[in-house]
Amino acid sequence: MTLKILFAAEPALWPEYETLLLAAFADAGLKCDLRCDFEDPAEVDYIVYAPNSGLQDFSPFTGARAVLNLWAGVEALVGNETLTQPLARMVDSGLSEGMTEWVTGHVLRHHLGMDAHIHGLKGEWIFNPPPLARDRPVGILGLGELGQAAAAALTSLNFPVTGWSRRPKDVEGITCLHGDDGLKETLKRSQILVILLPLTGDTENLMDAGAFALLPKGAVVINPARGAIIDDDDLLAALDRGHLSHATLDVFRTEPLPPAHPFWAHSKITVTPHIASQTRANSASAVIAENVRRSEAGEELLHLVDRRAGY
Amino acid sequence: MTLKILFAAEPALWPEYETLLLAAFADAGLKCDLRCDFEDPAEVDYIVYAPNSGLQDFSPFTGARAVLNLWAGVEALVGNETLTQPLARMVDSGLSEGMTEWVTGHVLRHHLGMDAHIHGLKGEWIFNPPPLARDRPVGILGLGELGQAAAAALTSLNFPVTGWSRRPKDVEGITCLHGDDGLKETLKRSQILVILLPLTGDTENLMDAGAFALLPKGAVVINPARGAIIDDDDLLAALDRGHLSHATLDVFRTEPLPPAHPFWAHSKITVTPHIASQTRANSASAVIAENVRRSEAGEELLHLVDRRAGY
Repeated sequence: MTLKILFAAEPALWPEYETLLLAAFADAGLKCDLRCDFEDPAEVDYIVYAPNSGLQDFSPFTGARAVLNLWAGVEALVGNETLTQPLARMVDSGLSEGMTEWVTGHVLRHHLGMDAHIHGLKGEWIFNPPPLARDRPVGILGLGELGQAAAAALTSLNFPVTGWSRRPKDVEGITCLHGDDGLKETLKRSQILVILLPLTGDTENLMDAGAFALLPKGAVVINPARGAIIDDDDLLAALDRGHLSHATLDVFRTEPLPPAHPFWAHSKITVTPHIASQTRANSASAVIAENVRRSEAGEELLHLVDRRAGY
Repeated sequence: MTLKILFAAEPALWPEYETLLLAAFADAGLKCDLRCDFEDPAEVDYIVYAPNSGLQDFSPFTGARAVLNLWAGVEALVGNETLTQPLARMVDSGLSEGMTEWVTGHVLRHHLGMDAHIHGLKGEWIFNPPPLARDRPVGILGLGELGQAAAAALTSLNFPVTGWSRRPKDVEGITCLHGDDGLKETLKRSQILVILLPLTGDTENLMDAGAFALLPKGAVVINPARGAIIDDDDLLAALDRGHLSHATLDVFRTEPLPPAHPFWAHSKITVTPHIASQTRANSASAVIAENVRRSEAGEELLHLVDRRAGY
């Protein structure tokens, strides 16, 4: 049987994914008809999906057995009531590697006080060596795939890492805290805080004035997760009153970040344009093909989303 | 017997080292009289030394059994003909940790193209994600303690690392090359080159016009070793003709780097004021005490310098 697979993502991704997905399906022993459009939605077997596609109404796809998301974040999908099919999010090694590199780079940048050197000391030999990483406590909010990968990289550089998750977790080499009290304690001890949480009803605006106030004076906030986890105005206030020394943000409530947004011009904010991590077509195609194979074999999907938890 | 130990380093270091060295000697079971000055040089048993001290003539110290350097670099000492005592260089974990953090941070900075974001995109959402580290070849010149520590950190982040040393070495997880041909091959494949060589007659001006020309177009050079390994004028020329994209330098022929030196104002050069790595008094004191204990017990000194090799 030939499986009908709809590719519903922005058209710019099609040329690269067409080749790689077809190769991955063939490798998985699947015969697939992969297209950007099918005349009859009811005959589609699987939907490869990115939230920036035009597709929002899943109800015509009555025969679809799963929606396979190309992104890690599914917050734009879990509230969609037309989506009744199983939903899998993307976990690929490229996504996690890219995130770890971006997080480790920006943690080291702030740890080493690099900005002063990159802006230039203008002839002044200001000898002000940083402490060792072992004396720089780092906090990570979120201990999913990405949080754990970042924690491993940072502990291998000797940073003492405290990781926080909603539910209790046990991750080797780091201090794991959970729940409301655990969150407060994690914030209190984090000179550098990295946010790697999914966006859910529980995490929206989690980082508000109260949370920023718990961080040590001079702390740095790094957010490559989702913009809405941070209350923008509260962040600006915490920077302006000098409590936080810097924020490095890769994600925003509106993307692209509008040119007039105050984050762009703020001297204590670094904006990176959602580059920390993206799905790599090569490894992602293999994950998609594996999930189609599993579904056809009656096995459980990888990275199946729990709609109630929101991720 | 009480050992007479001369502390010959810049006076600013004395308060911190006095306490820590005395504690380390006591821990090693040694009874020591530690001072910055002894009336009779001939009665001094050991010299704890930093090249920025006033002491240059070692000939009056006729009873000294070793000179224990506080720094990793000994190039200012190996040519000193008055120094006939055994000389040990400093290898301490703090030195190596600090260097690894600085090197990893600046490699990731260049890899991620951070400077554009730190300088600010001024409202322009330029989506230009970096490749993964696994597609960014890094070269390390020098595979001593510091080179090997940097290599381990970079390979754990998936950078493919080629390491070069004068003599053949075998280091797990990296490609090891040696000799003149190995140097050429290392340069040819290094998009980011990290210099961690000792300064010797062989390595002075090793990085000249010919060496820079072998690097791929757009390569970045990172030097936290010694300034004189690089030919300053050749580096400026390679940057100005656009062959190299950036140089990040922590060390210079003259330190502090004179305010009028062209490196300060060059848009493609980042100057850091010799902060990449320094001896940490705590761990260094333990290394010094261990070497005094070894010497008194007739054991071989740790990190003994080979005067002919120059390190």
